[in-house]
Amino acid sequence: MGRGAEARVIRAPVREEVRVELGPRSYAVVIGAGALAETGQRLVAAGFGGRCALVTSERVGALYRKPVLESLRAAGFAPVLVEIPDGEEHKNLASLAVLYERLLEAGVERGSPLVALGGGVLTDLAGFAAATLLRGLPTVLLPTTLLAQVDAAIGGKTGVNHVLGKNLIGAFHQPRLVLADVDALSTLPRRELVAGVAEVIKTAAIGDAPLFAELEERLDRLLALEREVVVPVIAACVRYKARVVAEDEREVSGGRAVLNFGHTLGHAIEALTGYEELLHGEAVAIGMVAAARVSVALGRCRPETAGRLDRLLKRAGLPTDIPSGLTPAALALAVRSDKKSAGRRIRFVCLEEIGRTTFVELSGEEIVNHL
Amino acid sequence: MGRGAEARVIRAPVREEVRVELGPRSYAVVIGAGALAETGQRLVAAGFGGRCALVTSERVGALYRKPVLESLRAAGFAPVLVEIPDGEEHKNLASLAVLYERLLEAGVERGSPLVALGGGVLTDLAGFAAATLLRGLPTVLLPTTLLAQVDAAIGGKTGVNHVLGKNLIGAFHQPRLVLADVDALSTLPRRELVAGVAEVIKTAAIGDAPLFAELEERLDRLLALEREVVVPVIAACVRYKARVVAEDEREVSGGRAVLNFGHTLGHAIEALTGYEELLHGEAVAIGMVAAARVSVALGRCRPETAGRLDRLLKRAGLPTDIPSGLTPAALALAVRSDKKSAGRRIRFVCLEEIGRTTFVELSGEEIVNHL
Repeated sequence: MGRGAEARVIRAPVREEVRVELGPRSYAVVIGAGALAETGQRLVAAGFGGRCALVTSERVGALYRKPVLESLRAAGFAPVLVEIPDGEEHKNLASLAVLYERLLEAGVERGSPLVALGGGVLTDLAGFAAATLLRGLPTVLLPTTLLAQVDAAIGGKTGVNHVLGKNLIGAFHQPRLVLADVDALSTLPRRELVAGVAEVIKTAAIGDAPLFAELEERLDRLLALEREVVVPVIAACVRYKARVVAEDEREVSGGRAVLNFGHTLGHAIEALTGYEELLHGEAVAIGMVAAARVSVALGRCRPETAGRLDRLLKRAGLPTDIPSGLTPAALALAVRSDKKSAGRRIRFVCLEEIGRTTFVELSGEEIVNHL
Repeated sequence: MGRGAEARVIRAPVREEVRVELGPRSYAVVIGAGALAETGQRLVAAGFGGRCALVTSERVGALYRKPVLESLRAAGFAPVLVEIPDGEEHKNLASLAVLYERLLEAGVERGSPLVALGGGVLTDLAGFAAATLLRGLPTVLLPTTLLAQVDAAIGGKTGVNHVLGKNLIGAFHQPRLVLADVDALSTLPRRELVAGVAEVIKTAAIGDAPLFAELEERLDRLLALEREVVVPVIAACVRYKARVVAEDEREVSGGRAVLNFGHTLGHAIEALTGYEELLHGEAVAIGMVAAARVSVALGRCRPETAGRLDRLLKRAGLPTDIPSGLTPAALALAVRSDKKSAGRRIRFVCLEEIGRTTFVELSGEEIVNHL
């Protein structure tokens, strides 16, 4: 082989595809570099054509709408672009009304796919609009944050916030296709990337011990966004979540509640700090360490296991201590007010070992007393 | 038997129960006199308890909230009452936001049933709030109009209007139980009762020839609200709709579209007359006769069959002529703008015989040209 050929050696594309098995609502999640540029051809392969809407936020749109629109046009679509302001404060009924109006004015019809490009706030909002416009438009999700790629975009939860609480209004509406382009992670602020790693660590902690060991070994390469590490790690997280969702799509049988590990206290901390001080992933990191501490106090978990979790989160740069100033009484009250509470008892997710959890029925006070 | 015993002879309760078969989402529709007073015990039998919300309109609430609240309290529930203004003009996102707020302030939780008492506007709006609050509350429908008892409350369609069109925002959300109290029909204005009869006649025309013959024979007794006629007639309509919905719950395979008989032109007429001149059932009556005329023009239907439909609707006191002033061009455009159009061709429901229909793909212009 001459020098010229050598220079043109192309690295094999790192790409994985995971199927979320939900009978007639099954769909593929494609994880890889450059996936955004394939949006058009993959929509055609999924049976779509004609009109479609691309919903994105202003910031993400500026970065990535171009390759997506070009790909859609090249595949014969007539995409309509709808951009909405960035930020969790816009994930509400007012933005939803604007989105409905823009989509209807654009002439979307039943069967027109709604393509949502952005982080979890955007995919939740756009997904809910799709769930409820014309009683349901097909959704294609293009998550651009690590958190959205491993969590928000998988499993069909959509919704908006209400002044009385986050995600209080929403619907289950599975997407038809998810394209997670890992290249999009390169423009993510470091703090947001790290917050996404919290959900990756959560997945490993509750259901995938080998992934946890891999993270302990390759955390730096994950944070450096090396494709050879990022793609299989995201795929492992998607695979785990797909399995949980397949068994309990609508949080009926209760199995899906395992995903709430660290979230009972995480949500409480977010609510008490006004959703401004901490990113969701940061609150979940604190919540996981707290949940592990409760598990140890209940005799369900060895202190070494809780320590391993604490160390990995810290190494990623995540906070693990409950913010000073949050009183136990306030925490207990906030835990009780979480929308997932059914009555006064909480189905608390305890860590038993890395990769294994168990549910324990506790009151808000009991949880806080074990911290 | 002495005179005293004779005076206390109790008429056997006229009551029917129809099951809507949708696998895990199956539910019962109870049709009978006095069903409202059984709400509480039937909710308990369905496995509910504790907190629940009763959503009704001001007018219907004044008439019927009392027996429902008493029944709920007697069965151990702590019902919260939410009343919203009457009228189609309040079936919108603004009312929905108010409803969300009132329900959240009342402390509804996942699993708390939302009981909706009223006509189709109310059950559509409350049903949509239930579909989307906390990603889905169980709904119990207590329809109080004939239209809601035979149509709106059956099949899981929920939604609100948008300034750009009716029912453009909505979701499929099957109720857990429907209690249709025929006694509630006695307070219905005559014009609304007659409009409901239009949907009864539609059901008979598209799928139940014996019911059509019965209506020809007993129309006066139906309009006089004789229980022995009203209950089985409503039950027949519910039975037919349940069968159609069971085969095509979410309007995917297309079978459910048969229910649109008379609605393609009916919706167009409603849109063009601003939803004020005509009640929905009146517009559908006009639309059915027009659809039958198109069917005759296409050689699909004998003129005698169209004539039978026209005569029965007229006898009920329903309008059957397209309002003068609606030009064919305007009608064609309005038909094309209906949300159920997929592309430019319309799946038009033709009448073949009383009790039998067929689909024909037509453009808006072709439909109007055959009128």
